Amino acid sequence: MDINVVNALTYEDFVKLFGNVVEKCPLIPAAIWSHRPFKDLADIEAHIKEFIHSLPDSGKEGVLRCHPDLAGLDLQSGTLTRESQEEQSQAGMTTLDSAESLQMYRLNTEYKERFGFPFVICARLNSKADIVRQLSERLKNDRAAERERAVEEVTKICSLRLRNIVLSDIQTKL
Amino acid sequence: MDINVVNALTYEDFVKLFGNVVEKCPLIPAAIWSHRPFKDLADIEAHIKEFIHSLPDSGKEGVLRCHPDLAGLDLQSGTLTRESQEEQSQAGMTTLDSAESLQMYRLNTEYKERFGFPFVICARLNSKADIVRQLSERLKNDRAAERERAVEEVTKICSLRLRNIVLSDIQTKL
Repeated sequence: MDINVVNALTYEDFVKLFGNVVEKCPLIPAAIWSHRPFKDLADIEAHIKEFIHSLPDSGKEGVLRCHPDLAGLDLQSGTLTRESQEEQSQAGMTTLDSAESLQMYRLNTEYKERFGFPFVICARLNSKADIVRQLSERLKNDRAAERERAVEEVTKICSLRLRNIVLSDIQTKL
Repeated sequence: MDINVVNALTYEDFVKLFGNVVEKCPLIPAAIWSHRPFKDLADIEAHIKEFIHSLPDSGKEGVLRCHPDLAGLDLQSGTLTRESQEEQSQAGMTTLDSAESLQMYRLNTEYKERFGFPFVICARLNSKADIVRQLSERLKNDRAAERERAVEEVTKICSLRLRNIVLSDIQTKL
């Protein structure tokens, strides 16, 4: 990637290209476009992290609530974003047997009832077994700690999505 | 509307229902769900306004950048959100003659070059002539004043979208 190419993008092309690096939150890349010129990819990433961390607790929870359940309704009904579909598929969420599906459903439901936002984890960095284990464990956190933990995962997902975009040919995406 | 029905919604149903009251910013209704129970519709509106006003300048500009141009590419290619399509249509943006289209294109382009975000106006509250006049006038503002002015319009649009939702039958939208 040539950062000069990115820095030359209009906000419209920038949002078209990076609009879903944080799931269903085009507001965030649209906001950080204000901070051009970027030094490099890490600089873009740093601005996104800073933006999310500067949000009030409700805003952080809002970011989380824009995420789909893992192995949830959106996956079953084919309404995941392209990025989520790829990530959930890589983590084995599309090939669960009925016992595993039921377990995910129960754990997701318990998690959402407890915290008021969905369980978010960087699926690309975790196996199916890791995901179930962490979902069970994180259920024991208090809400504030879990909010921060989940936001950390959002930034990991964002980082991989950013890398994925800039490592492919930018021009083909516009 | 019975506010108790709204207060009983899961965040998923709340976001499904109110997800686009601020154009392409589901993050915002998803965030203010944290403030339930709401007293009434005005209370929901107040929380949304407060959230937007609490954003840094870049965040406010991010909200603006999630809006389409008036009589722009999205309208021509049929990729407006349902809400924007209705609003632009009501304001006569779908029936411009070629001279009017060209004028809107030129003014929108000049505005975006000057401010780095699109011209946002509550189309439901303005006629075609008002829109052209205000676009020309607001081009003379400085960036900070115009950012605040445009955010004001976002909150007017939000207010009408909210009213539109709660005045129709909530249950049919879920």
